Amino acid sequence: MDGRVVRVLGISGSLRGASSNTALVRAAARVAPVGVEVSIYRELADIPPFNPDLDTDVVPAAVSRFRAALQASDAILISSPEYAHGVSGVLKNALDWVVSSGELIDKAIAVINASARATHAHTSLCETLATMSGRVIEEASVTIQLAASALDADGNLSDARLSASLTSAVEALVRAVGTRHAL
Amino acid sequence: MDGRVVRVLGISGSLRGASSNTALVRAAARVAPVGVEVSIYRELADIPPFNPDLDTDVVPAAVSRFRAALQASDAILISSPEYAHGVSGVLKNALDWVVSSGELIDKAIAVINASARATHAHTSLCETLATMSGRVIEEASVTIQLAASALDADGNLSDARLSASLTSAVEALVRAVGTRHAL
Repeated sequence: MDGRVVRVLGISGSLRGASSNTALVRAAARVAPVGVEVSIYRELADIPPFNPDLDTDVVPAAVSRFRAALQASDAILISSPEYAHGVSGVLKNALDWVVSSGELIDKAIAVINASARATHAHTSLCETLATMSGRVIEEASVTIQLAASALDADGNLSDARLSASLTSAVEALVRAVGTRHAL
Repeated sequence: MDGRVVRVLGISGSLRGASSNTALVRAAARVAPVGVEVSIYRELADIPPFNPDLDTDVVPAAVSRFRAALQASDAILISSPEYAHGVSGVLKNALDWVVSSGELIDKAIAVINASARATHAHTSLCETLATMSGRVIEEASVTIQLAASALDADGNLSDARLSASLTSAVEALVRAVGTRHAL
């Protein structure tokens, strides 16, 4: 990567304050190796309902900032809950705004699953990201079953095995960025 | 149905003004037989981003009205677009608000597909509705490929075959309501 900083945008698909998905995104930021900056996207609740009629040259400000944040990132790390066997509506709504603008095209993406039982939403989300020409990186898309006890008071993963798994996922994501740059 | 009016709530999963899904929901209202009232849900854009922390005794007003509209209906007719092989985020977000409150439990639901190619979203949406214990009625869930020419100036389906298909779907939905009442 030529010493350049790799920028990863971390996105949680849940607005719940005590969300395990948000906790995983934060934990990913902490295990990121030197030279990798994980910034956390915090405006998911501000994205308005997707309306194709409003998807014109001038889009709502929160959508514009979301697109810019994606554009400025080398890779994306998503952790999102499953609601009723489907992708969380708030996350899908945000993604619907970037289908036409194309910020995910050829972007390396890790899809971290916080629940081994949440297979439907995970599969749907990966299908949508691939349809948007994102590169879902398989080795970076791990399941990390997050029990309440798995985080210490500082939000670090206290379980060594889970921490190692998340670290490997971030590293695999960063390698995938390097692969693209080398092409 | 003992002469009682059957109430159907029609929901389009698209906010686009010229949406073919919205056109289908409106057309369904027009072909409904005597004794069946199809009212159209028009507040999808007002439903706030689903946040489990706000899913308490007092929910946002638009959510409360959505739940009441579902509760007051004997059956639901949904037509929703596919965005990037997934369910439209705005529709899924609204559904996320009624997972815990349960208005869809045992409700007869028709899922009308406006595009024969949109199989991923249709499958995901049916999976979510079934997970919420809704009764997706297979004979009522038809695909009606809606070309621009398929609607006349009044919004009626000008293609006799499509109109017959939509009429059959509404009738199958109403029969399914009767089945439940007869149990």
